[in-house]
Amino acid sequence: MDRRSHLAALAAFAAAVLPAHSLRALETIMEEDHPQYGLIGQIIAQPGQRAALAAILTEGSGTMPGNFAYIVGEDAENPDALWVIELWTDKAAHAASLQLPAVQAAIGKGRPLIAGFGSRAEFKPVAKAGA
Amino acid sequence: MDRRSHLAALAAFAAAVLPAHSLRALETIMEEDHPQYGLIGQIIAQPGQRAALAAILTEGSGTMPGNFAYIVGEDAENPDALWVIELWTDKAAHAASLQLPAVQAAIGKGRPLIAGFGSRAEFKPVAKAGA
Repeated sequence: MDRRSHLAALAAFAAAVLPAHSLRALETIMEEDHPQYGLIGQIIAQPGQRAALAAILTEGSGTMPGNFAYIVGEDAENPDALWVIELWTDKAAHAASLQLPAVQAAIGKGRPLIAGFGSRAEFKPVAKAGA
Repeated sequence: MDRRSHLAALAAFAAAVLPAHSLRALETIMEEDHPQYGLIGQIIAQPGQRAALAAILTEGSGTMPGNFAYIVGEDAENPDALWVIELWTDKAAHAASLQLPAVQAAIGKGRPLIAGFGSRAEFKPVAKAGA
């Protein structure tokens, strides 16, 4: 799919899922940023350290070139588990982000709070709406 | 966390991860919609049916009250697997959506294309930025 078709599909997708006021706002984002690479990862914090780890992860994700979304969520079943969902313009942008000073600092700060890693998946965001 | 604090945290989070032009656009969304409930699910399509299933899922997700995001992604390793990532105002909004005619229609249309379900997780989106 070329860039124009991709943007058209994204716009149709947004039109399908968002109320009008959100849609107008989101159009501005989508015209310039659209993700081709997605990442889902589960991180297990040391007992009692989930909130602290979530804060570090979020701090470390500031102003990353090519990042479209960086969502940190607390697992509803495991009180020590976090989910991180990331959307990037492409895989290279994600790889490059790991070298950013802020991300390196967050990795160093967060590592002692991490007990292990759970599920991990890479995906390609698709947006095929009815229109 | 009360609503005001939550919105402030979301705004700080957005400020940290988005370029200025996207940030201005996103503020409009966040003032009125902010997610308290997230869902990650893997769906395995019948062989060769992944794209068709993705299209049906996206069509069925049009104009769902309380839906903040509905992302469909193609798994990078398993050619039959899709990921669906959803953000909702709350769990009740997600539950209610399953009764919508468009969603019911999509379920009926998509069911024959589904071979099974993989990982599933519920989470609470958190947004603790440095600011």
